[in-house]
Amino acid sequence: MKQFMNSKDTIVTESIDGLLRTTSGRLARLDGYPHIKVVVRTDFDRTKVALVSGGGSGHEPSHAGFVGPGMLTAAVCGDIFASPSVDAVLAGILAVTGDAGCLLIVKNYTGDRLNFGLAAERARSFGRKVSMVIVDDDIALPDLPQARGVAGTLFVHKIAGALAEQGADLETVTAAARRVIAGAISIGMSLDTCTVPGSPKEERLSFGKAELGLGIHGEAGIEVVDFAGARAAMAMVADRLSPHMGPGDHVALLNNLGGATPLEMGVLAEELARSALGPQVKWMIGPAEMMTSLDMQGFSVSLLPVTAADVELLAAPVAMPAWPGVNPLGAVQVRPLPDGLMPIQPLASPHPARRALIESCCRTMIAAEADLNALDAKSGDGDTGTTLATAARALIAALDRMPLADTTQLLRAIGMELSQTMGGSSGVLLAIFFAAAGDATSGGKDVVSALSAGLDRVSQVGGAASGDRTFIDALAPALAALPRGIAAAAAAARAGADATAAMSRARAGRSAYLAAEKLAGFNDPGAEGVARLFEGQARTAA
Amino acid sequence: MKQFMNSKDTIVTESIDGLLRTTSGRLARLDGYPHIKVVVRTDFDRTKVALVSGGGSGHEPSHAGFVGPGMLTAAVCGDIFASPSVDAVLAGILAVTGDAGCLLIVKNYTGDRLNFGLAAERARSFGRKVSMVIVDDDIALPDLPQARGVAGTLFVHKIAGALAEQGADLETVTAAARRVIAGAISIGMSLDTCTVPGSPKEERLSFGKAELGLGIHGEAGIEVVDFAGARAAMAMVADRLSPHMGPGDHVALLNNLGGATPLEMGVLAEELARSALGPQVKWMIGPAEMMTSLDMQGFSVSLLPVTAADVELLAAPVAMPAWPGVNPLGAVQVRPLPDGLMPIQPLASPHPARRALIESCCRTMIAAEADLNALDAKSGDGDTGTTLATAARALIAALDRMPLADTTQLLRAIGMELSQTMGGSSGVLLAIFFAAAGDATSGGKDVVSALSAGLDRVSQVGGAASGDRTFIDALAPALAALPRGIAAAAAAARAGADATAAMSRARAGRSAYLAAEKLAGFNDPGAEGVARLFEGQARTAA
Repeated sequence: MKQFMNSKDTIVTESIDGLLRTTSGRLARLDGYPHIKVVVRTDFDRTKVALVSGGGSGHEPSHAGFVGPGMLTAAVCGDIFASPSVDAVLAGILAVTGDAGCLLIVKNYTGDRLNFGLAAERARSFGRKVSMVIVDDDIALPDLPQARGVAGTLFVHKIAGALAEQGADLETVTAAARRVIAGAISIGMSLDTCTVPGSPKEERLSFGKAELGLGIHGEAGIEVVDFAGARAAMAMVADRLSPHMGPGDHVALLNNLGGATPLEMGVLAEELARSALGPQVKWMIGPAEMMTSLDMQGFSVSLLPVTAADVELLAAPVAMPAWPGVNPLGAVQVRPLPDGLMPIQPLASPHPARRALIESCCRTMIAAEADLNALDAKSGDGDTGTTLATAARALIAALDRMPLADTTQLLRAIGMELSQTMGGSSGVLLAIFFAAAGDATSGGKDVVSALSAGLDRVSQVGGAASGDRTFIDALAPALAALPRGIAAAAAAARAGADATAAMSRARAGRSAYLAAEKLAGFNDPGAEGVARLFEGQARTAA
Repeated sequence: MKQFMNSKDTIVTESIDGLLRTTSGRLARLDGYPHIKVVVRTDFDRTKVALVSGGGSGHEPSHAGFVGPGMLTAAVCGDIFASPSVDAVLAGILAVTGDAGCLLIVKNYTGDRLNFGLAAERARSFGRKVSMVIVDDDIALPDLPQARGVAGTLFVHKIAGALAEQGADLETVTAAARRVIAGAISIGMSLDTCTVPGSPKEERLSFGKAELGLGIHGEAGIEVVDFAGARAAMAMVADRLSPHMGPGDHVALLNNLGGATPLEMGVLAEELARSALGPQVKWMIGPAEMMTSLDMQGFSVSLLPVTAADVELLAAPVAMPAWPGVNPLGAVQVRPLPDGLMPIQPLASPHPARRALIESCCRTMIAAEADLNALDAKSGDGDTGTTLATAARALIAALDRMPLADTTQLLRAIGMELSQTMGGSSGVLLAIFFAAAGDATSGGKDVVSALSAGLDRVSQVGGAASGDRTFIDALAPALAALPRGIAAAAAAARAGADATAAMSRARAGRSAYLAAEKLAGFNDPGAEGVARLFEGQARTAA
């Protein structure tokens, strides 16, 4: 089994039931499973014209997904790619048709025409007013007498449905449906075939090829073409549609045949807008899955010439989530980037003591390069020392333009400098640390408290806490001890760093994905770096 | 290329533009392509809290599809499966954040945490109020310290979004987001891997296997399991979720990972309702594509324990078509079949002359069996004669229970009899012919006019007209001549039937698919049958 189903004999009925469960009782099915699969509105006002459509399954959300106020009154569902029986259609008609009568909307396939046609006769013999329209929007086969009905059927459902909802009579609704059918044109293209549940997939298309003018039942396209990207694909589609297109404004319906991703459909929407069709396409329905062909990685474009009144009917809101609505097709709105992405460089200011402190810290890191690389090689790619040393060298080189006299600005400037010169997660985390500390000093905190606030932020963003075998295991105790002097802080940092060697399970960072035994006995390189930094300062102070 | 795109470097930007074109200017993008891909609301009221989310692309409609009133204010889009840069996130924050501040909703991946985290710091240094929450709803990896953020993120977008829209302050919105994150749990299952645009597909799963507990970036599932259908699949998912589920009512979000068909998703919805989770799942979001993983044929189930207030926030209407809404999960409503599927057998009545006429017609058809089969063999499967003869024999056998004295009822009864005993399209078409003729006589037409009305209906339903090489080519002229007597009708039928031999192009029925040369020189078997029928009656009358 290659589908999420229980068996091919129950996939349609179970799928319909799954849909019905979430409609708050607004939809029901007739008690005719498995042969009669009819979904009906329970809230239908029989003084209005009923709209009944349907056909084979495998085109979901068509047709059951479009049953509801403003579209279909009932959907008659066949098995996959097979017409429903006469009895099923008749059941659907009789279940919803009142004195206002019923319009059958049938896609142009022999089975559907015959079964819906005979059901209509039977319903008439019961005194029901029934009219029937046949949708034949597919222009793929220009010489064939019988054009297929494909996604353009949705235009009929929506326009006729909106009119019926407004209370139009059967003649008016039928005439509108016929007018829409006369105007609707569609063509499809696909990069792959569809997989019929229970059957092996027919691998028909080789890499780099596409089928143009395909049906919605796995029928081969009229032509196998070279696929040279979305733009060329849409150009071919536009080329086929153009000769059938009259003057004036059109609505385009961009249908996902099932297996194209939303990402691809967005590209196709863009290409449709840019195509030769674009200037006449003033409104768009979709992109969305509307008339699918199971999992086919393809799309279809349907066009309808419209008046303002048509657009109003297409735009009348309906509650079914399957209907994507109609929207004007316009230009892409582009807004300027906000100020602030290029931060203003703070004014440099001198502060010899701080300068010496920073430089001294940096030199400690540079000196520790080889040792920290060696530690990192136990659990990672052995570059922690180099990363820190490189950043330290860059920081020393930047000291001349640092706002050394302004604590807040200095902390922020160090963060900015580190984020620009230090690669990877560690650069970002250190940048966050200094930026958050800078913020905290601007809020009035002393430097030690501010550094603790920075550490809290790093912990939140990085997702690590004490005990997780990170630099936090050294820095947190060091900052806690710092009010008692640098020697106490250095001792706390060392104890913290050494404790990481016994931490068997990393909870954050790269080490989190390594087995415990690979980590045992070695200090975390980040924690070790912090310990060396504080020890270096303690020596300087001593 | 296996995707509808122009290149993997432009697929994301072009897809975003395709989306933006249909939003009537309500959404815009920042002018930062290709590196800064940020979609923003243009109608945003900065006195409200801004919601900014995002991450790698490939999860469409997340996140740009959920930008709009009541959900996100901005979406920051990375390349496919890659976190957006700090600058991109910062641009998104600065573009929409006013005095009310901004909530960043981040899925728990290191890259996203760091880039969003640093961008938050930068935005704070500009005086913006920014809070950040990290979504970690995936329960697939119970022992890993860092649970991934997957489709449960949608709960956060919707609940926090609805609160922000109502004017709640940043603290309230953030607290609600944290509460939702604490409650949300998710797990996914897939039958196939995803295809990353521009890369060959990794074929990891063999037939009959599924991955359980997979990520949304093509990461392998935690377990490869046997796939034994939708019910068993949902049972496994339920089994993983249950231990993490508290008491009380839950909302389920049923997410299509991209490549499952709507048909399959309907089955999964049904199985979710029937599963062990069912009794606690009172509402459902989807099934729909919400947080996809490109074209992955899989699904995920997310659960959230909810209060009535939460449900109200989830149910608050939003206009984005990507949001499927929340619906109560209820029972399937089943309605009885309508009366009329088993038509009441009309009362038999005698009419010797009509009986003789019908019987004589039937005998003509029986006599023509071999000849008509031979003609049909030229263009079809050679069974037209047998089909008609079989039906004729059945009709003779049914004459005792026919309402022979009532024209309308008789025509309808013949139609019903033929539809039951005669296979294929021809049975349906003849049933339509007689049923429609019956209707016409009930409307007051004489029998010849009624038969013409029946023929019109057949022509509409069958899609064939005169000249299309069908039985219509004999029947239409015969009915037109019938008022001048049976001999004239027979002559007209014969002329019409013989003319079909010269019709090089069939426009309806099976022959439509045959080349012209295969048809030339032979009468259409249906038309020939009609001619023999009228000729037989003319002989009887003579």
